[in-house]
Amino acid sequence: MIIDAAATSRCLDAIRERRPLIHNITNLVVTNTTANALLALGASPAMVEGADEVEEFVAKSAALVVNLGTMSADRAAAMRLAVAAARRADVPWVLDPVAVGVMRYRSWLARDLLAHAPAAIRGNASEILNLEGGADGMAHGVDSTAGSAAAVAAAQRLARATGAAVGVTGAIDYVTDGSRTIGIHNGDAMMARVTGLGCTATAIVGACLAVEQDRFAAVVHGLAVTAVAGEIAAARAHGPGSLQLEFYDALYRLDAATLEERIRFG
Amino acid sequence: MIIDAAATSRCLDAIRERRPLIHNITNLVVTNTTANALLALGASPAMVEGADEVEEFVAKSAALVVNLGTMSADRAAAMRLAVAAARRADVPWVLDPVAVGVMRYRSWLARDLLAHAPAAIRGNASEILNLEGGADGMAHGVDSTAGSAAAVAAAQRLARATGAAVGVTGAIDYVTDGSRTIGIHNGDAMMARVTGLGCTATAIVGACLAVEQDRFAAVVHGLAVTAVAGEIAAARAHGPGSLQLEFYDALYRLDAATLEERIRFG
Amino acid sequence: MIIDAAATSRCLDAIRERRPLIHNITNLVVTNTTANALLALGASPAMVEGADEVEEFVAKSAALVVNLGTMSADRAAAMRLAVAAARRADVPWVLDPVAVGVMRYRSWLARDLLAHAPAAIRGNASEILNLEGGADGMAHGVDSTAGSAAAVAAAQRLARATGAAVGVTGAIDYVTDGSRTIGIHNGDAMMARVTGLGCTATAIVGACLAVEQDRFAAVVHGLAVTAVAGEIAAARAHGPGSLQLEFYDALYRLDAATLEERIRFG
Repeated sequence: MIIDAAATSRCLDAIRERRPLIHNITNLVVTNTTANALLALGASPAMVEGADEVEEFVAKSAALVVNLGTMSADRAAAMRLAVAAARRADVPWVLDPVAVGVMRYRSWLARDLLAHAPAAIRGNASEILNLEGGADGMAHGVDSTAGSAAAVAAAQRLARATGAAVGVTGAIDYVTDGSRTIGIHNGDAMMARVTGLGCTATAIVGACLAVEQDRFAAVVHGLAVTAVAGEIAAARAHGPGSLQLEFYDALYRLDAATLEERIRFG
Repeated sequence: MIIDAAATSRCLDAIRERRPLIHNITNLVVTNTTANALLALGASPAMVEGADEVEEFVAKSAALVVNLGTMSADRAAAMRLAVAAARRADVPWVLDPVAVGVMRYRSWLARDLLAHAPAAIRGNASEILNLEGGADGMAHGVDSTAGSAAAVAAAQRLARATGAAVGVTGAIDYVTDGSRTIGIHNGDAMMARVTGLGCTATAIVGACLAVEQDRFAAVVHGLAVTAVAGEIAAARAHGPGSLQLEFYDALYRLDAATLEERIRFG
Repeated sequence: MIIDAAATSRCLDAIRERRPLIHNITNLVVTNTTANALLALGASPAMVEGADEVEEFVAKSAALVVNLGTMSADRAAAMRLAVAAARRADVPWVLDPVAVGVMRYRSWLARDLLAHAPAAIRGNASEILNLEGGADGMAHGVDSTAGSAAAVAAAQRLARATGAAVGVTGAIDYVTDGSRTIGIHNGDAMMARVTGLGCTATAIVGACLAVEQDRFAAVVHGLAVTAVAGEIAAARAHGPGSLQLEFYDALYRLDAATLEERIRFG
């Protein structure tokens, strides 16, 4: 499969046409922004996290997004039910291992969830290094202390060990399935000043998994769409408040010509 | 009672003057946006959902809003306490049956809550059809698969069965109390690309119930205010991000002349 | 120590340089807006509220923010663990007693938490009067029914009784440590029409406590930064929606010259 801007554009078209139902179990900070980003993109988001409901809902969904931020025992229990149900129903799911390595509870949880065959994993460098190697404690809260390039080898090992396509986001985003590896040279530094744009990238990857069989391609398309919308938004913004708003508008208006002009794979 | 733009404007004036305390038990996606919409409107919102607190708080409130999104066992328990307390204290309450029919747990919960005499119900067509008829499974996640007109007869039956005024939102909004039925021809298609504007409409209906004895009129005014603010916002917006921001600003600035000029009942 | 705009500016510089990790246990309405305000300011926010994680995380943090909105039994348990851990690890923490006096459960909780030596407390007049005197029931939901000046004497007594620096926000903000008292004559009335800007002020106080040893100064700087960013935002805004966005942008762009020009202590 050729990975280029035209392929990303076809993936975006498929989302807008099919409007896949994306089941999110995510953290309390980004429920609203994740739903808005998926709606702006053209998908149909739903947040369902009750233990009484997740199994029933995941079976109706086109993809599942599992995000470990603001973890609680209740949400952990729901996640365990949901990923098992996703595997049974053959629904692709993506893991966002927020702050793995910083707190032991969620490191254990993340490793348990990995046993249920995620199609994709998206994290920052500290998260991917910790998830792969178990080298705890090198992050600064939810933010990475390492550049994304430092985690590429760990991402490749993690991809081979789990079968997932792995995305490491940072100044440059890297995606690998263990054999193929690609860099995405888009985005803007101000994106790190808006909370949860990493979580948004993961949810957009979820939407791509719903319409794209090749999981490596799905992660590439999801991160490319996020980074391009982010750089368009940053160029129009006067600060992180306006960046957030412009990001939704840019996602909504994104078209093939803009992707062709802006995406820089390499 | 005559339902016209002047009546809607008087309802809005009463909210701004009395600043009614609106108790919300709502889903995790829309806590912030619901509070902001009620503040922009002129009401005084509070989100209280702890089982230790809801009964005490509902008795101090002018209206209660119960929204079934992102359901959990804890929030369900709080809702049962709250609606019973609202009935005892004669506080009007409005039900938003998010995704009823999609998941059995919340369908059962919704039907239990209905026994506590809601003053109003606001949902999309799939939700109202499911809530009235028990015909499960026809929604696409939290979004409707039917147009609002398809649910008018079910809304009329639901109103007669429960005593609530029922609003069905969509391209045209319909409101009925079982004998009277009216359409509201306002709003904009882009509103569906912002998460939770339906939930916001329900909360604004709650604010109207706090100041308007006629529950049919309260639902009409609440949906008309939401739809007019939404169409003003859509006209100024470049996408769903700016629509959300402009919506708050439009609510805040809404006046009698604008309502008179824009509202189209029929 | 001299409290002037230059000192506030040095505090802001220290936050931007050290990027302190701020641990927030806060209400469901403001998780996103609090994180965005702290990021725009230059701090590194994290929301961690699981009982399995809070003790481990608070020990890694530079300050802890505890906010009593949308209280639940689970979050209350996490708060008790977190403030005890903060005290053991000598991490400064700030209490936001949302709606204390309105509901008995959180009034009891607030008084229990006070025993763990907060460095600071930030509330509106009703909250401070209730927290200090136990005079229940005078608030209108989460909003104050009294002007900030009416709570200055109570704030002074509360500061002497607890050792915390106490901020009372309103049209004028007052800060006291029981011996020193100062007023901050900034801000804009429209700020009260955006949900959670009081909660944001508390979180910004938390960021100041992370870099400023003098807790009185930390509260003054935190409230001054919030009020100045708020008045800049209000001047650019067309309503509360645009005020929220402009607030983040103003925080992000705030500099020494602007603080010098605008801050009015007295």
